[in-house]
Amino acid sequence: MQPKQPPIQPRLTLVGAGPGDPDLITRKGLRALATADAVLYDALSSDALLDETPAHCQRIFVGKRAGCHYKRQDEINELIVTTALEYGHVVRLKGGDPFVFGRGQEEKAFAEAAGIPVEIVPGISSCISLPELQGVAPTSRGYADSFWVITAHTRNGGLSDDLFRAARSNATVIILMGLGRLDQICALWDAEGKGALPAMVIQNGSRPDERCWVGSVNDIAPRVLAERDKGPGIIVLGETVRQHADFVNGDLRSTIREVATNHPS
Amino acid sequence: MQPKQPPIQPRLTLVGAGPGDPDLITRKGLRALATADAVLYDALSSDALLDETPAHCQRIFVGKRAGCHYKRQDEINELIVTTALEYGHVVRLKGGDPFVFGRGQEEKAFAEAAGIPVEIVPGISSCISLPELQGVAPTSRGYADSFWVITAHTRNGGLSDDLFRAARSNATVIILMGLGRLDQICALWDAEGKGALPAMVIQNGSRPDERCWVGSVNDIAPRVLAERDKGPGIIVLGETVRQHADFVNGDLRSTIREVATNHPS
Repeated sequence: MQPKQPPIQPRLTLVGAGPGDPDLITRKGLRALATADAVLYDALSSDALLDETPAHCQRIFVGKRAGCHYKRQDEINELIVTTALEYGHVVRLKGGDPFVFGRGQEEKAFAEAAGIPVEIVPGISSCISLPELQGVAPTSRGYADSFWVITAHTRNGGLSDDLFRAARSNATVIILMGLGRLDQICALWDAEGKGALPAMVIQNGSRPDERCWVGSVNDIAPRVLAERDKGPGIIVLGETVRQHADFVNGDLRSTIREVATNHPS
Repeated sequence: MQPKQPPIQPRLTLVGAGPGDPDLITRKGLRALATADAVLYDALSSDALLDETPAHCQRIFVGKRAGCHYKRQDEINELIVTTALEYGHVVRLKGGDPFVFGRGQEEKAFAEAAGIPVEIVPGISSCISLPELQGVAPTSRGYADSFWVITAHTRNGGLSDDLFRAARSNATVIILMGLGRLDQICALWDAEGKGALPAMVIQNGSRPDERCWVGSVNDIAPRVLAERDKGPGIIVLGETVRQHADFVNGDLRSTIREVATNHPS
């Protein structure tokens, strides 16, 4: 007689992988990975985290990079459910935080509608942590009382209305998925008389190949657009960018320059 | 002859402890704690995390709860420096993320001015994670393209100007340190014709004693103010609160009710 297999108990844990550095996942996220029967991961989460899963765990790439989706969202939703029913505990590993522009809410709702219990494990969101790792707090006494996080990428393809309002506010404005429209965004701020406002752009944040540009609304776009890679990036506009070492040390040139970064592991 | 002691190498690591659940600290934060010679912690970080420090580590409480500071900020800044010079590696453990209204930037600047190297370890900020653990994404397709995080507590004691602007925006608005002024804040939104907007308040988020109230701008303040404890809380105003299970299940009464929460550890 063959030993009896325990019945499959489908469940889903949505785990935030953090901004890139695999040490910026939470202890709770690591525990979820250690008990995963299958992990569905995208390009923004670190491959090193897959080594935290047990040997029997199915590793399923579901893609997603700016402008290039390997699978459609409805396909991912379906795959989560079928995988959970087949294997048991599915970890959906998502870059950053699963609920910040990550469509984690849709994945949760779809799985729950299929009767699958869902747990959420928050992740370190790039919107706060990447400026922070460059020494810039999104809020700080004397600079800003608030920060406003906006996706430039809207469903209808235009710029978000919120961007127009944000350009008139005193908030530190943090824009995700906006790098392809950096010049349009800077033009919005310039039209509000904020051409001299400090600005920062970060790509590959918290990774060994991190790049960061600092400058002002008026001068940052041309160089970033010339030098950026095809991946996503984060834009920070606000007085708080003055906290960056290049402003503090007074060696910010009129032409912006790339900042060498080095994250100790 | 006594064995030679290695020279003290002062350094500071600012670590975000996360919102309360000790499993919501990062792996990088745990590694910093494991090599701490001294830890300076406040009331918002979990005591369980102190057990992650080595036996020789000095554990120093520096207080801070809403409205009741055990030590002044300048005293904490000084203590970080003197402790690093005396013991070596100081971990400054701060609730949430050290750079979100946490004055971590000031501690970093003060230590650096004293010649002490500083590393930052981002933490899970309550502003995103606590709504998330209640099933509410700060942004979600069809609800909001952006979220705006604001402290209600300004230096001069008045309400932040940003609150007035936020009441007119379509952003999900997340307000920290505003519970004592919840009625004033709701009145601001009501004055903009948003009395029916969904609203949520969370205290002790991600802890076993978490409490959450859901309702609308017009009906949430009286019950929260009657039932809250003296600790801090987070206020969320926006259509996105409709994602909370009580709205989805359609059992939200006209009088708001307290939501039983239960976080598996």
